[in-house]
Formats: sequence, structure tokens, C-alpha cells
Amino acid sequence: MSGVEIVPLAGIPEIRPGDDLARLVGDALERAGGLAGGDVIVIAQKAVSKAEGRVAQTDDTVGLILREAQAVRRRRGDLVIAETEHGFVCASAGVDRSNSPGDGWAVLLPRDPDASARELRDELGARFGAAPAVIVSDSFGRAWRQGTTDVAIGVAGLSPLLDLRGTPDARGRVLGSTQIAVADELAGAAELVLGKASGVPAARIRGYRVPPGEGSARALVMPPERDLFP
Amino acid sequence: MSGVEIVPLAGIPEIRPGDDLARLVGDALERAGGLAGGDVIVIAQKAVSKAEGRVAQTDDTVGLILREAQAVRRRRGDLVIAETEHGFVCASAGVDRSNSPGDGWAVLLPRDPDASARELRDELGARFGAAPAVIVSDSFGRAWRQGTTDVAIGVAGLSPLLDLRGTPDARGRVLGSTQIAVADELAGAAELVLGKASGVPAARIRGYRVPPGEGSARALVMPPERDLFP
Repeated sequence: MSGVEIVPLAGIPEIRPGDDLARLVGDALERAGGLAGGDVIVIAQKAVSKAEGRVAQTDDTVGLILREAQAVRRRRGDLVIAETEHGFVCASAGVDRSNSPGDGWAVLLPRDPDASARELRDELGARFGAAPAVIVSDSFGRAWRQGTTDVAIGVAGLSPLLDLRGTPDARGRVLGSTQIAVADELAGAAELVLGKASGVPAARIRGYRVPPGEGSARALVMPPERDLFP
Repeated sequence: MSGVEIVPLAGIPEIRPGDDLARLVGDALERAGGLAGGDVIVIAQKAVSKAEGRVAQTDDTVGLILREAQAVRRRRGDLVIAETEHGFVCASAGVDRSNSPGDGWAVLLPRDPDASARELRDELGARFGAAPAVIVSDSFGRAWRQGTTDVAIGVAGLSPLLDLRGTPDARGRVLGSTQIAVADELAGAAELVLGKASGVPAARIRGYRVPPGEGSARALVMPPERDLFP
């Protein structure tokens, strides 16, 4: 059966600044049966940010959001839709008070989520002998749809876009313009076993053949000249 | 291991108007080991639309798109971002010439994708004794991110949104505003085994506890008063 299997990596404690995230994820992977070639590890941004000390204590959440934002796209009451320094467009420029280290604390996005993904990939590769593709995921809202879905904000060891341009469809007709954001679909698939309230920050996906590449989540950012909703 | 498993439902022939989609999906399910309680079936919109005869032959694709659109949101050259009669915002109002029945043909969205999902759910339930949750999926672009992801345009037997408002996070802090569009994450997860070019139009997802509900994909549409990107 050529299926895809997603398992939660359980037993990872609450992450604190300076924690060795790769060791904790590796220990959880061992409990889940280890790594195989082609596996994808999805890790929640919040765990990465906490390990990297990307947390802030403030009474002024809006001020913090505006500091983190490169540009504010829309604002309505407490809701700020902002572009981050990475180019991502999301609520509150990624600043999040839920699952933070404590009252008055907020978690910020990693400075370089691709580098975070690469580091985890390299360290897990060294430990297990097979380097997994790694995705750092976060929950983003969407322009015209209710609810969040998890998407990739950092990637390593895969191309985040599967490019079908030029390949034939099932009838042999060449597909004109299809690029599939598989890194976002993988992040969303992993969210199904993570869960906001469960304290499980990582998942292993097995059985999906990732598009090869070194990878960067920056490739998922719509370039300004193609952005119809600035 | 409390994981999620996604398997492609292979061997379903090219769908034509009037085909008995539930029978064909049921046959494929039997080849894949059947249905169990709690399973989710994801079926590609194109298969549903073809079975329902929602295809059109035209030389005037843009005219067809404008007929299918309830409102045009943006237009740049051949690219039309339009709102459909269902309230979905997507490219070409869902009109798609790839994987169409032939040259000059296009596939349109089902008139009532929730009803299509309900019908499939009921017929599979009658055949297998356990009615699965059903999601009709389509590939949509996003406002600020490159590439498409599959999302739910029709649902039956699940609430498309997991509402965590009022539940505590891992530290006991109440989550303020979190609704997760799990039907979209399930649709995207299924896309990983469908593939545009492979001719596999359906997948079975096992191991995910869906939020209970009769369900409607209309719940995923951002209401106009909350839409910041009209």
C-alpha cells in the first residue's frame, strides 16, 4: 500500500530557551521507531522559537507586533494582518501569547526558520544516519477562509513546491501552471496529530516522496509583483 | 501508535457524466481493505463534477469563467480571481481545463458540493455499514503564498472547523481565538497521495478523530463582514 503515515512524536517536554531541541526530537523519534530514508519531520514553530530564545515579555502586545512587522497589511481592532521580516503574511506578525512561557510572555517567529530546519536536519542526520526533510510549521489564517491551517515557514531537504508545469495530465494534456505547495500540505497534515492543546510539538511523516532540493520556505512567499492582495 | 494513515484509492477509471461514483469509489475501497468507523474519504472535485455532468465545451474560457463567477475579485491577464456562487474565492471561479473530458472542454465546480459529499457518504454507509466522513477537495491558490493546496469545497459527516476557543493550552492558558480548518488540512493531506498527473481521484484517511457534525463547507467561507481582502 503506497500510503502516507503520520505519527506524533510524543513525550517531548515543554521547551525552554537553550534546550537542545534536536536531542529531544531525536529521543522522541527513537521511542517512535527511529528514522528511515525519505522521512519528513515537522516541528512546530513554537518549540523552535522557545529553544532559540525567541520569546519576549511585554504588556504591550500591539507594540511588539508592530516591532516584529515589516509592514502592516490590514488592521481591525486587535487583529493585525502583517508582513514579517521573512515575507510571510499572517496575523500579529507571528507574535503569539498562547502556549507561551508564562503570563505576559509572547513567542516570536524564529529569525531564520530555514536555518532552524537545516540545523535540525543536520543533527538528526548525524544521529540516525539518514537526514530527514524538515519543516518548521506555524498556524496561519487565510484571506477568504475561516480557520487556520498549518503551513511551512522553514524547510530543509525538500523543495517546498512540486512543479508540474510541463508534465502531462492523466489524459496526456500538458498542465499549464500547476505548482503544488506540498510543504504546506505536509505541515497541515502533521497538524492533524499535533494539536494545539496536546503539547505534542513534532510529527514524523513517512511514505511521501518529497520533491528533491535543499529548499527554502522563501520560495513559498508570493513575490510582490505577483501579489494581487497587497 | 496514534497515527494517521492516508492511502490512495487506486484503479478508479476516468469518470464520465452519469457514472456511479459511489460504486466506483466503493470498489476501490474494497481493494484497499474496506472502511472502518471514523474513516474519512477525500474525493477530488474533478471526479465529482464529471460524474454530475458539470462539464462544458467552449472556445471562450474567459466567458465561461465570468458566467461561473458571482463576483470578480482581481484580474491580471488570463488570471481571474473570482468568487463562486458558493462563496469560494479561487482562480477562474473553479473552471479548469486540465484533466477535462477532451480538447475544448472544461470542468466546472459541482452546484452543491456538500450535497455531493452527503450522497457519497450515504451510499458508502449503506454499502459498508459505517458511513465515512466525506470531503470533496479542490486545488486553490492562496493570496500571499505560491502554489496551490487542496482544500475542502464540500463536506459531510464532520465539522470542517475544530473549535478550540475556550479550551486550555498545554500550560492551562485559555486559547482565545483558535479555530483550525481541519477539513482543509485533511484535503491537503489527501492531495499528497492523489497527485494531479496520476489519475487517482480519491483517498482514505484513517486514524483522525474528526470534529463531529453534519457539516458544510460553507462554514469555511469567510463572511463578508470579516473579509479584509475583498
